[in-house]
Amino acid sequence: MDEHELFMERALVLARRGEGLTRPNPPVGAVLVENGKIISEGWHKKAGGPHAEVNCLKKVSGIGKSAVLYVTLEPCSTIGRTPPCTDLILERGIRRVVIGCKDPNPSHAGRGIRKLRRAGVDVVTGVCRKEAHALIVPFTKRMLTGLPFVTLKLGVTLDGRIADSSGTSQWITGPTARKKVQEMRRKVDAVMVGAGTVRADNPSLLPRPAKGRAPWRVVVGSDISEKSKVLTDEAAARTVIVDGSVKKALRALAKEHGVMHVLCEGGGELAGSLIRAGLVDEFMIFMAPSVLGGSGFPMFGKKGWSLPKMPRWVFQTLEKCGDDVLIRAVPEKEK
Amino acid sequence: MDEHELFMERALVLARRGEGLTRPNPPVGAVLVENGKIISEGWHKKAGGPHAEVNCLKKVSGIGKSAVLYVTLEPCSTIGRTPPCTDLILERGIRRVVIGCKDPNPSHAGRGIRKLRRAGVDVVTGVCRKEAHALIVPFTKRMLTGLPFVTLKLGVTLDGRIADSSGTSQWITGPTARKKVQEMRRKVDAVMVGAGTVRADNPSLLPRPAKGRAPWRVVVGSDISEKSKVLTDEAAARTVIVDGSVKKALRALAKEHGVMHVLCEGGGELAGSLIRAGLVDEFMIFMAPSVLGGSGFPMFGKKGWSLPKMPRWVFQTLEKCGDDVLIRAVPEKEK
Repeated sequence: MDEHELFMERALVLARRGEGLTRPNPPVGAVLVENGKIISEGWHKKAGGPHAEVNCLKKVSGIGKSAVLYVTLEPCSTIGRTPPCTDLILERGIRRVVIGCKDPNPSHAGRGIRKLRRAGVDVVTGVCRKEAHALIVPFTKRMLTGLPFVTLKLGVTLDGRIADSSGTSQWITGPTARKKVQEMRRKVDAVMVGAGTVRADNPSLLPRPAKGRAPWRVVVGSDISEKSKVLTDEAAARTVIVDGSVKKALRALAKEHGVMHVLCEGGGELAGSLIRAGLVDEFMIFMAPSVLGGSGFPMFGKKGWSLPKMPRWVFQTLEKCGDDVLIRAVPEKEK
Repeated sequence: MDEHELFMERALVLARRGEGLTRPNPPVGAVLVENGKIISEGWHKKAGGPHAEVNCLKKVSGIGKSAVLYVTLEPCSTIGRTPPCTDLILERGIRRVVIGCKDPNPSHAGRGIRKLRRAGVDVVTGVCRKEAHALIVPFTKRMLTGLPFVTLKLGVTLDGRIADSSGTSQWITGPTARKKVQEMRRKVDAVMVGAGTVRADNPSLLPRPAKGRAPWRVVVGSDISEKSKVLTDEAAARTVIVDGSVKKALRALAKEHGVMHVLCEGGGELAGSLIRAGLVDEFMIFMAPSVLGGSGFPMFGKKGWSLPKMPRWVFQTLEKCGDDVLIRAVPEKEK
């Protein structure tokens, strides 16, 4: 790993602290380096608040001519809720900027870079590009399609069951997997389930501990008790009931609330209908080494596909997660 | 890895060449080393034929005083279909023997070692013990219980389906997985399926290429066509139809035909009944990144377990296998 990558990795670590907090903005991180040492760090903490570059640069007074600013995403060049970061960079006399990836907005992409270069700044782009892109995949998806990025998470047995025939599902997966789910909830803007899951488990769907996160909760289907936690707890104002097209609802969440990333946690019927509608971008399957048999609830609902038409995915990663396994897969089109 | 391990690894490689050929004997390998170099190799190729030690030693005439014999399994000390290998070792003047693991037969274990030691041979035991034991696990199981070791192999979708609702199952898994199945068939003594699988697919169940292997074929359930391949092809004499207790049939196969290792390739109902009967020793699940949904055939049959009583396994290994994943698991009791 060269020096640029080393500092960009650090900026990426900082950026990830903002995941789940920045909607409708992407998470961004920045570090300022002088003589091979990090002298300041910053990240975007909240929409409307300072950008990562501002948080990084405001902490230092005199910046030397040799200073290098690392930013995971191309600095903004337009006036939004805050002034353009490119202006601040020039004002502070920074002569060298290293960027992870370009702005995914086609009408902005490259503008910040050009503005800096025209002012004589040496700009290096594409350092840790893959990771920098991966970090803002949900932002990019919403930007380009108007729809949020949907992660479908299910906890299943090895034979693809999410509950036994009586509906009991606690606990198929172990404590390590359940902890990992809390982490996933903290990184998203909304947690979605079917009404059946609310009726069966009455879950809060909130991350525990929340660590400042306040995701929306989306229940698909209206037939839930008025006493359900999602309708009565302290976060009830951020619960949305969807009683029509899920796609329309997702589009509305993206538009009205800046939701970029939705975590769907089941149940099986909702999971199946999301797959059928082509709305799933990523599958995160926690698989336990246990067996419930054919009478259990199927992970993608009761309907099915014929073999020639079955949806095909691509395994991305497989990792042990306590006694369970976490399988990450994406639809085949993204292969 | 020290020198002993290095040569024992080679003996294990040789031993594995006999897998699927040696029933009712275990596969065994041997190498003779002089001055740090292998001067002869041998392995057990066929029951009734020479043991690994004999095959190794018969190739060399003068054996130096410094020669070391590596054998994956404790040499036999009793007269079977061939004379005891311990006698041959002493006759040939070998002064040092390195052994992988002891004879698993409680009434033989350690006898060969004691006989050699009493004759002044320096005997080292337990080199690569774990691998040496693993190689003869099916032999050990049959020896200690009278039942063969059963590997349950299934090719499934990520949601645990072995066929779509019309019964179509070709092909859920890809060519790499299918090739691996041929390899597995070559290592076992019998391949078992339910009658439903014969009716649906009319499989030969023979390894292709056979490489000298002639596994038994076991069909559970009698309702198959007289024209089925398993009843009409060149290997028909080695087909057994089981129309009663699978456990009794397995015991008979072990006793009458020396069967140590059975590969069950489905279907779902047979797989479920084997699990219920506690007969499965190892699960080898080829999982494709595809989805058939709840209407497809469940991998463990239509019946099920309640969550508190569900069978629990332990994941052993997960490996990519082309686009698929091969999951190896064992029942939890073996954890």
